[in-house]
Amino acid sequence: MTQQQPHPFDRALALDHSDLRAGLFAGTTSPDYWNMIGPFGGTTAAVALQAVLRHPDLLGAPIALTVNYAAAIEAGAFDVQATPARTNRSTQHWTVQITQAGASGAPQVTTTATVVTAVRRETWGATDLAMPAAPAPQAVERVTLGPAGVAWIGQYEMRPVGGGIPARWDGGGDHSETLLWVRDALPRPLDFPALAAMSDLFYPRVWLRRATRVPAGTVSITTYFHAGAAELAEVGTGHLLGRAVGQQFRNGFFDQAAQLWSEAGTLLATSNQIVYFKE
Amino acid sequence: MTQQQPHPFDRALALDHSDLRAGLFAGTTSPDYWNMIGPFGGTTAAVALQAVLRHPDLLGAPIALTVNYAAAIEAGAFDVQATPARTNRSTQHWTVQITQAGASGAPQVTTTATVVTAVRRETWGATDLAMPAAPAPQAVERVTLGPAGVAWIGQYEMRPVGGGIPARWDGGGDHSETLLWVRDALPRPLDFPALAAMSDLFYPRVWLRRATRVPAGTVSITTYFHAGAAELAEVGTGHLLGRAVGQQFRNGFFDQAAQLWSEAGTLLATSNQIVYFKE
Repeated sequence: MTQQQPHPFDRALALDHSDLRAGLFAGTTSPDYWNMIGPFGGTTAAVALQAVLRHPDLLGAPIALTVNYAAAIEAGAFDVQATPARTNRSTQHWTVQITQAGASGAPQVTTTATVVTAVRRETWGATDLAMPAAPAPQAVERVTLGPAGVAWIGQYEMRPVGGGIPARWDGGGDHSETLLWVRDALPRPLDFPALAAMSDLFYPRVWLRRATRVPAGTVSITTYFHAGAAELAEVGTGHLLGRAVGQQFRNGFFDQAAQLWSEAGTLLATSNQIVYFKE
Repeated sequence: MTQQQPHPFDRALALDHSDLRAGLFAGTTSPDYWNMIGPFGGTTAAVALQAVLRHPDLLGAPIALTVNYAAAIEAGAFDVQATPARTNRSTQHWTVQITQAGASGAPQVTTTATVVTAVRRETWGATDLAMPAAPAPQAVERVTLGPAGVAWIGQYEMRPVGGGIPARWDGGGDHSETLLWVRDALPRPLDFPALAAMSDLFYPRVWLRRATRVPAGTVSITTYFHAGAAELAEVGTGHLLGRAVGQQFRNGFFDQAAQLWSEAGTLLATSNQIVYFKE
């Protein structure tokens, strides 16, 4: 009999609870998804969403997720509180807070989030943002570049079609758009937490735009989910095409618009974030 | 001696408080900005932001605002609670809730919001989203069309360059993009609450895309502010160029990306929302 190890992403999402109905969960940061000075923001977003998805009062599936990175999460234990602020007939509004014990032992807020879930019904539909043209994933070289000590990058199979990390940091950048194929390095069927995490996997647009590395970090991310669980299941372990572009860089902050399509061309998620940068 | 009436938008933003430090404010819905079954969502967003801006512990200026419309606000009194969840050296994270007394008298959440404020410093900057070409505002005809009983539309001077409300509801739509000049009908110098409200003034993209009117309402909006108070003051009572486009319409929801530029071409705000629609 073989016992299968849980996927690293499922380990990162693992939440304990003493009273499920109260929506209070306990988690631990994952070394597998460690970033430079805290967990990869994508896993933090996924954990906030996961607390809602685990709540027994959940209505429907995720429509919108906003995560505000109030402070770096330190390695170790954290608590997640998910609260249904309002439940309607077919939509539900959630607030989420992640806290860690501070120096004094009192809980400090590291992350605030809001989630909208809804029961979706079949309607008319259309896409006004076509998938960009790209060669098949297999035709694009996989990269594993990333700063030393950044574990999370190794958890993804990334194949940049354009706008990869600059080969020379020579200040010569002239655009801020990245297009890449991506999926979990260790195959894992796509679900909402994975989509939430992948929406945050683009390196800082300011690095590309300036071909210069400056300190940068996401302050707030908002992701809209355009597909249901059945459509995500259809994608399975397939590649997603991700696109990210900066829009406005000014006085310490820039915004990034991002999209994720299935290989079949379905726009699964659109995401925006505002990012702090220095200098 | 003449006494000047406050601007209707300032009346809509008026908040009382019994204990400013506690961040609990009391407001009243404005008939001037009434929409079909509740206040114009832009004023609700502006009120949530205003509570943060009025709080004595405020650090810096708004960077990001997310407002979730959990339930329609009824005409009359409401309460706003603004809480600084985390204060860092140069950024601050806020949670906001708007409540109204329900049928039983107990407070019901109508709106949740998060706000990030920050002290901005001068840095390198660039725009990767150029202002679309448009004739001067004076060269574009002003429209005052809107469904009967929708007061808020009259509060804005709107001059659509393209993508105005369909003249014929004949199901013949083929795009979802609107471009228009806008400012307060009664002149009022631009500030952050006004920018938050104007980010929400585009009529539902699904109406344009289908040239069909279906029930629709914003569920969640996120606005990023790219300018400081001094830059907004420079705009003064000038026109803004607004652009809005739908991206994905599917199974009861669509998202809208929007931008607001000053007439001089500065990208002041980028905004995204997810909108419920029927059929």
